[in-house]
Amino acid sequence: MKIVVIGATGTVGKAVVAALEGRHQVLRVGHHQGDDQVDITSAESVRALFERVGQVDAIVVTSGELYFGPLGETTPEQFRKGIDSKLMGQVNVALIGQHYLRRGGSITLTSGIVADEPIAQGFNATTVNAAVEGFARAVAVDAWGAFRINVVSPTLLTESQEAYGPFFPGFVSQPADTVAQAYVRSVEGPQTGRIYPVF
Amino acid sequence: MKIVVIGATGTVGKAVVAALEGRHQVLRVGHHQGDDQVDITSAESVRALFERVGQVDAIVVTSGELYFGPLGETTPEQFRKGIDSKLMGQVNVALIGQHYLRRGGSITLTSGIVADEPIAQGFNATTVNAAVEGFARAVAVDAWGAFRINVVSPTLLTESQEAYGPFFPGFVSQPADTVAQAYVRSVEGPQTGRIYPVF
Ligand SMILES: NC(=O)c1ccc[n+]([C@@H]2O[C@H](COP(=O)([O-])OP(=O)(O)OC[C@H]3O[C@@H](n4cnc5c(N)ncnc54)[C@H](OP(=O)(O)O)[C@@H]3O)[C@@H](O)[C@H]2O)c1
Ligand SMILES: NC(=O)c1ccc[n+]([C@@H]2O[C@H](COP(=O)([O-])OP(=O)(O)OC[C@H]3O[C@@H](n4cnc5c(N)ncnc54)[C@H](OP(=O)(O)O)[C@@H]3O)[C@@H](O)[C@H]2O)c1
Repeated sequence: MKIVVIGATGTVGKAVVAALEGRHQVLRVGHHQGDDQVDITSAESVRALFERVGQVDAIVVTSGELYFGPLGETTPEQFRKGIDSKLMGQVNVALIGQHYLRRGGSITLTSGIVADEPIAQGFNATTVNAAVEGFARAVAVDAWGAFRINVVSPTLLTESQEAYGPFFPGFVSQPADTVAQAYVRSVEGPQTGRIYPVF
Repeated sequence: MKIVVIGATGTVGKAVVAALEGRHQVLRVGHHQGDDQVDITSAESVRALFERVGQVDAIVVTSGELYFGPLGETTPEQFRKGIDSKLMGQVNVALIGQHYLRRGGSITLTSGIVADEPIAQGFNATTVNAAVEGFARAVAVDAWGAFRINVVSPTLLTESQEAYGPFFPGFVSQPADTVAQAYVRSVEGPQTGRIYPVF
C-alpha cells in the first residue's frame, strides 16, 4: 500500500511509520520535517499536498495541537487553537484526502483518552477529541462502500510521560509501539467507524 | 431565578421559555426576535449581550446552525458552518457567560440525537453535537463548586417533523414540551456534567 502519514515526525507518528514501513510504501509528512511538508490548519496547504502526492491507499494523521489553560481565564479566541488545529486540521485532511483515496482505502485520525477522561484544564482537548471521534463515526456511514475511516485514541505515551505526566495523575501510559499497533489495525484491518482506544 | 434563554424564539426555545417562565424571570434572547438580540457566532456580540444583561442564575442556549450535505461534495469551508455556529457559538456563550453567573448557577447547552445516531449527510451535526457534549463534560470538572453545566440532546421534535422528518427515518419524535422538561431538570436540578437525552 501507498500510505501518507501526516505528523510522521512526531512522537506518535514515528512509531506508526516504524510499524508500517516494512510492508508498505510510507510517505512521511511533517510540518517542517519529513519527506514532504503540510500545514493541516490550511485547506489550501492540504490540497497542495495531495496534488503532489496523488492517489494513496491510506491516509493517517498523527498531528494536531490543543489548548490547555484555566477555565476562568480562557477566551473563545484561545479555545479556537484546538478547533483550528486538531479538529479542522484533521477534517481538512479527510474531506480533501477522500478524493485522492483509492476505492476501499482508509483514513485514520487521532483523538486521545481525554475525550473520555477529562483532565484539569483539558476542556479544549475533550471537546476536540470527542468531535474527531464523532466526525469519524458519522463519515463512516456516508462513506460506506467507498472508504473506511477510524480513530485511534491513545492514552499518555510512555515517551511523553516526562513532558505531560504531571497533567495525567494516575493515568497508566502505553509505549508508542503499542499505540502504533492500533493504527496498523485501522489501516490493514477491515473495520470502519471504529474508535480504537489504547488505554 | 433570573434566566437568560438564547434561542428563545425558536421551536425548542419557545417550549423551554414556556416551561420556565411561570416560576422564574426569563429573558428571551433571539437573533432578530425576542426581548434582546445576540449573534452567538460573534464573541463580541456575546460579550455585549452579557454586559447589558448583567448577573444571572442560569444560562440556556437553544440555538446553533449545522451543515448538511453530501460527503463527496463537502468542502472544509462548508464544514465550518456548524463549527462557527452551533459549536463555537455555544462555547462563546459558556466561556463569556461564566463570568456573569451567580455562584452555583448553571449553563445548559443543546446537542441532539445525531451525536449518537448518525443520519445521512449529517456528519457535521454528529461532529458538532459530540463536541458540545465533550465540552460540557470537561468544563463541569473544572467548574466544580463554581457553576454547573449540562447538555440536552433532543431527538427530532414532533413540531419539526414536517420540516426534517424525511432525514430521520424511523426516529420517534418527542413533543417540544417533553424536551423542555430536560432543560428544567438541568436548570432546577442538582447535577452537572450530564447529557440529558430526550429519545
Ligand atoms: N504524545 C502523547 O502522549 C499523546 C497521547 C494522546 C494523543 N496524542 C495526540 O497525538 C497527536 C500527535 O502527538 P505527538 O505527541 O506525537 O506530537 P508531536 O511529537 O509534537 O508531533 C507533532 C507532529 O505533527 C506535525 N505537525 C505539527 N503541526 C502541524 C501542522 N500545522 N500541520 C501538519 N503537521 C503538523 C509535526 O511536524 P514537524 O515535526 O515537522 O513539526 C510532527 O510530525 C496529537 O494530536 C496529540 O494530541 C498524543
Ligand atoms: N428542532 C428539532 O427537531 C431539534 C432536534 C434536536 C436538536 N435541535 C437543536 O436545537 C437547537 C434549536 O433548534 P430549533 O429547531 O429550535 O431552531 P429554530 O426554530 O430555527 O430556532 C433558532 C433559534 O436560535 C436563534 N438564532 C439563530 N441564529 C442565531 C445566532 N447566530 N445567534 C443567536 N441566536 C440565533 C433564533 O433567533 P431568531 O428567531 O431571532 O432568528 C431562534 O431563537 C439547534 O441547535 C438544533 O440543532 C433541534
